[in-house]
Amino acid sequence: MAANSLGKILQLTTFGESHGAAMGGILDGCPSGIIIDFEAIDRDLARRKPGQSAIVTQRKEADAVSFLSGIFEGKTTGAPIGFVIQNGNQKSKDYDHLKDIYRPSHADYTYDQKYGHRDHRGGGRSSARETVSWVIAGAIAKQILPEVTFKAFVSAVGPHQLDQDSEGFDLEAIEHNNVRAPHHSWAKEMETYIKSVRKQGDSVGGVISCLIDHVPKGLGGPVFEKLHAQLGQAMLSINAVKGFDYGSGFEGAKMLGSDHNDLFDEDGGTKTNYSGGIQGGISNGAPIYFRVAFKPVATLMKVQTALTKEGKLAKLEGKGRHDPCVVPRAVAIVEAMSALVLADAYLMNRTTKI
Amino acid sequence: MAANSLGKILQLTTFGESHGAAMGGILDGCPSGIIIDFEAIDRDLARRKPGQSAIVTQRKEADAVSFLSGIFEGKTTGAPIGFVIQNGNQKSKDYDHLKDIYRPSHADYTYDQKYGHRDHRGGGRSSARETVSWVIAGAIAKQILPEVTFKAFVSAVGPHQLDQDSEGFDLEAIEHNNVRAPHHSWAKEMETYIKSVRKQGDSVGGVISCLIDHVPKGLGGPVFEKLHAQLGQAMLSINAVKGFDYGSGFEGAKMLGSDHNDLFDEDGGTKTNYSGGIQGGISNGAPIYFRVAFKPVATLMKVQTALTKEGKLAKLEGKGRHDPCVVPRAVAIVEAMSALVLADAYLMNRTTKI
Amino acid sequence: MAANSLGKILQLTTFGESHGAAMGGILDGCPSGIIIDFEAIDRDLARRKPGQSAIVTQRKEADAVSFLSGIFEGKTTGAPIGFVIQNGNQKSKDYDHLKDIYRPSHADYTYDQKYGHRDHRGGGRSSARETVSWVIAGAIAKQILPEVTFKAFVSAVGPHQLDQDSEGFDLEAIEHNNVRAPHHSWAKEMETYIKSVRKQGDSVGGVISCLIDHVPKGLGGPVFEKLHAQLGQAMLSINAVKGFDYGSGFEGAKMLGSDHNDLFDEDGGTKTNYSGGIQGGISNGAPIYFRVAFKPVATLMKVQTALTKEGKLAKLEGKGRHDPCVVPRAVAIVEAMSALVLADAYLMNRTTKI
Amino acid sequence: MAANSLGKILQLTTFGESHGAAMGGILDGCPSGIIIDFEAIDRDLARRKPGQSAIVTQRKEADAVSFLSGIFEGKTTGAPIGFVIQNGNQKSKDYDHLKDIYRPSHADYTYDQKYGHRDHRGGGRSSARETVSWVIAGAIAKQILPEVTFKAFVSAVGPHQLDQDSEGFDLEAIEHNNVRAPHHSWAKEMETYIKSVRKQGDSVGGVISCLIDHVPKGLGGPVFEKLHAQLGQAMLSINAVKGFDYGSGFEGAKMLGSDHNDLFDEDGGTKTNYSGGIQGGISNGAPIYFRVAFKPVATLMKVQTALTKEGKLAKLEGKGRHDPCVVPRAVAIVEAMSALVLADAYLMNRTTKI
Repeated sequence: MAANSLGKILQLTTFGESHGAAMGGILDGCPSGIIIDFEAIDRDLARRKPGQSAIVTQRKEADAVSFLSGIFEGKTTGAPIGFVIQNGNQKSKDYDHLKDIYRPSHADYTYDQKYGHRDHRGGGRSSARETVSWVIAGAIAKQILPEVTFKAFVSAVGPHQLDQDSEGFDLEAIEHNNVRAPHHSWAKEMETYIKSVRKQGDSVGGVISCLIDHVPKGLGGPVFEKLHAQLGQAMLSINAVKGFDYGSGFEGAKMLGSDHNDLFDEDGGTKTNYSGGIQGGISNGAPIYFRVAFKPVATLMKVQTALTKEGKLAKLEGKGRHDPCVVPRAVAIVEAMSALVLADAYLMNRTTKI
Repeated sequence: MAANSLGKILQLTTFGESHGAAMGGILDGCPSGIIIDFEAIDRDLARRKPGQSAIVTQRKEADAVSFLSGIFEGKTTGAPIGFVIQNGNQKSKDYDHLKDIYRPSHADYTYDQKYGHRDHRGGGRSSARETVSWVIAGAIAKQILPEVTFKAFVSAVGPHQLDQDSEGFDLEAIEHNNVRAPHHSWAKEMETYIKSVRKQGDSVGGVISCLIDHVPKGLGGPVFEKLHAQLGQAMLSINAVKGFDYGSGFEGAKMLGSDHNDLFDEDGGTKTNYSGGIQGGISNGAPIYFRVAFKPVATLMKVQTALTKEGKLAKLEGKGRHDPCVVPRAVAIVEAMSALVLADAYLMNRTTKI
Repeated sequence: MAANSLGKILQLTTFGESHGAAMGGILDGCPSGIIIDFEAIDRDLARRKPGQSAIVTQRKEADAVSFLSGIFEGKTTGAPIGFVIQNGNQKSKDYDHLKDIYRPSHADYTYDQKYGHRDHRGGGRSSARETVSWVIAGAIAKQILPEVTFKAFVSAVGPHQLDQDSEGFDLEAIEHNNVRAPHHSWAKEMETYIKSVRKQGDSVGGVISCLIDHVPKGLGGPVFEKLHAQLGQAMLSINAVKGFDYGSGFEGAKMLGSDHNDLFDEDGGTKTNYSGGIQGGISNGAPIYFRVAFKPVATLMKVQTALTKEGKLAKLEGKGRHDPCVVPRAVAIVEAMSALVLADAYLMNRTTKI
Repeated sequence: MAANSLGKILQLTTFGESHGAAMGGILDGCPSGIIIDFEAIDRDLARRKPGQSAIVTQRKEADAVSFLSGIFEGKTTGAPIGFVIQNGNQKSKDYDHLKDIYRPSHADYTYDQKYGHRDHRGGGRSSARETVSWVIAGAIAKQILPEVTFKAFVSAVGPHQLDQDSEGFDLEAIEHNNVRAPHHSWAKEMETYIKSVRKQGDSVGGVISCLIDHVPKGLGGPVFEKLHAQLGQAMLSINAVKGFDYGSGFEGAKMLGSDHNDLFDEDGGTKTNYSGGIQGGISNGAPIYFRVAFKPVATLMKVQTALTKEGKLAKLEGKGRHDPCVVPRAVAIVEAMSALVLADAYLMNRTTKI
């Protein structure tokens, strides 16, 4: 119910503003008895972290998580897992110039319309700093489903799109290039493009694709609990996301049924997978795959026209350290949100049959 | 929480299988004091109804709704609105041949995997017959927000896509052609195409666009209650939907930030609307627009290979009366789901400030 | 979330006003594969039914339930179970005199304050007619937990209280006297008292005790999901209920810890059961028992002073057919609500361990 | 939904074990624009604090709360309020002797049955240390409803019960005696009794009454959102609580309707208030009052028989610093939970009418 909670059985509730004291959350409903792999959490945090490469923001954030509860002697107890990440390097002075100004295509104006006032430091609650908590919770969710693999990667940066289908990708390549594309030469090209965009003080959008394999059959439900609708909601919750499709997606809308239907094998598998691993909202055991579209980030290192609180247009100079393109870092977020959705659906599915 | 509920304050819970006794639902949280326009409900039902034109299924469904509670002397009382639609013309015999067989790209196989057995008559709970209840509830939701306009229309059928932007559409045309496209000559072309697909016993996908105008500012929330994420979840709950994007959508992923940012006017409006009326998850008062991709329906009037419960492949003949393309009828469903999401967000937003 | 829903996994949502077209509900989250015992449902309905004996209301209500979904060939499918009970014999004319008047200690005044207007016919949504849906859903919930026994009974009528502890009761006697007391001579005395109260046109309160045995260990949770807090909320939802205590209850507040602590047996059982089968909010396998206090019903067959909408005091004559004491019929309701809570906790508990 | 969340619009989610790193929570849904009175929060914390007088536990807990988000420049922003209380003085060594033992009438056994293992240090998640977070959140909730007054007090300690009705109490006295009874000579008697119980190494139960005045009309709902059912659930969530009644309560069950009905005054008020300020589940503007029964705490400073994990009975010596009677400190908890329930109902009620 609450506006800052995600999930039903496995429920993440978060708090924090980019320049407040700390970010953090509570992961409730995590089953007892899981021996937590803390290094796996740190690995996912490192993939999301600012400053990790030349093509992402050079902000320094330590992103050290403290677990305050729910884990005893290395094992989950069934109690809620509280965690906190201090916002060490706040530099909120950097944002004083934004106090009475609404930046274009940010949440500044709408936030003020909704709440009557706002925390202007770096976007406050609407900042993507929030996603640090999601990555932590998602890394735990992955450990609820150790057999399931989550592989997100960058499939487009601006006009540069991978033109191969998922079969041709080299998933091993993803973590070996700065862009996190599953193809070294494409990655090179994308990186060059991002650098040129940055040099202009501009930003650019992109697309992340995600492949989830070894999914148990039967997750999700036929009506308002469709697995892909839950995935869609989770992805559309990520900052800057503008679209989601799964399986054949928007391309599927162009197809004929006789081409689109996935014919069965005798073992219940299918010869094709336009369904994207989900039929009637329920997983069928085939790989789930989907795409997530990210707009270019709104913060530019250029002069833009902004709106003052008094209703005047004003020049706003770009300041600070920002991502010219968020998708390389957002790969970890897409995986985390996928894992939260699937682990929740997995636990919910335990209640289905007598 | 429940798998068959949608919404938080305004909550729709539904029941029913396509060939059971009845469909129906409970709309809880509807404010008291609304003088219900029953004809408006019937008008929306008529737009969803089978048999309404030559290019949709020729099934006969009366779709007469009985309201059982929550409305007294024509006005909502604040009590939950219970309603039922009898499934008059059930013809469940038509489905006896499906008892031990899984149709390709239907929910038959996954439903059986999840629940251990199933109602094989016409898809049971996974049938799009379910959406009749959504249209009823959505028509009431529209009356919670009388100033908001919801205009969904068909923007693509198979490869036939409208090539104009939303400015050029003729919204008046929508209800004056069988396809529900906002352009008469395109509609003609699409209709001809659907007829040819039907003649082949095949089906085809399509895209519905939706334009919501006169939206109050401040609806939605910055984190897990983003207005577009709620819309996405609602749209992805509609049968056969494979994708959702809003504002600039997947195209926005190709753009530069300097092109994509919506610069302000002095009144808080924006010169462009790539944001699609939502910034940081919260409505900014500009028109909300989004696209919904539908796959081709899985039921074909052709012989296909299906899977038997015993794990054998078997020939399955197409039978019954089905839509060659669902988008003309789904327009009413897209609007209904939009209205449910917006009315819920509107009520929730009343609790925001002290 | 919704105001007319109870439960998390197993969730009952209801609708209906006492003199509207029908009562009904949707039971969502019921596991698939239960062979429904319809006679057991009817037996529980008969125990709640008006007109069943000389000491309850003589209204005639058929209380025939129609199941509209979720059960196929006698077995639950996992789909939501929709059901309806027609309000055949409505006699809403009987209530015309109440149109502009607020009866004392009814919901008339508060309902009008909250909603701005009301359905004045027999209490509308606030009528105990609502509980017919709870009994139906509860009878299904009992079938989710076939090994658990639910035994509610009348332990006090006005000043007449059973002075024995639960050990001395004859649970077999309950369904063999009109009062539903577990003791024939006490039942006789209570019945005589109720008849004398009715003769005076008055009403009287009472207490129902409930004993739940063979409860699995581990149901409930340590903080906001305490099993007794869920039971308390469910019982306090029943019309006319003023109090709830469990185990040692209010008497326990007078005791010393050294007397109250339940010492263990070696098998994990306890020598005493002041805990009432629940420790730290979680069932320990011992019998759960609790008490529910009912006030005297507010409708009297006497002249009373009421308030008009215009703010004048006015004489109101008692009319219609009402219960002088609700507890004999409410026994079935207490059991039903208990079963809904326990079945929900049972399903939730499946998600606890990895 | 989550097991560690309370409330619908105003939702508190908590974490923490008594001897873990910290306690804390997230208060979501708090309206923006409240100027937080931090001293009021500290005052309520001080009333709950160990070591505050000679008749409560002498443990030292600093109970300093850090707010991490949701408050900017002293004012709520509408963002979730995250807060943490460090568990400074943990002394978990004190609990090593409990590692393999289940204490009688504690949650040790049930927790292990449910989760498969447990944090044995001081009760872990089931400890009443948890309530520190509730008092913080409740103190904020009070500030959402500044006109409403919450006055809880001790009305019984063991066999010592106040024999006056609420009219005769001196509410000013409450905070001027160690017991928090609204009557100085009764308080004296109760204090003497508690001291004698402590001297014996024993504990004793008690009753807290609560009086809530200046409540807006219309809070709560007629079916599963009854205001008293929400209060009951909240009170039954407090550690050691065994019962709840409101208005006439269990005494009301003995009364005749003609005595119990609250006759109206012309202004909509009532001459008596057996209803306890709530009719049909909805507040009527009269004072809300209720009672909460607490059992004696299970930890004794005496030798008791406990159960080992291996199923042997064993002598267990009392150790540590514990409350001989919890009610003097629990007064602050009862008020906090009341405020959370009422503020939530108040916000929810804003969505009722069109």
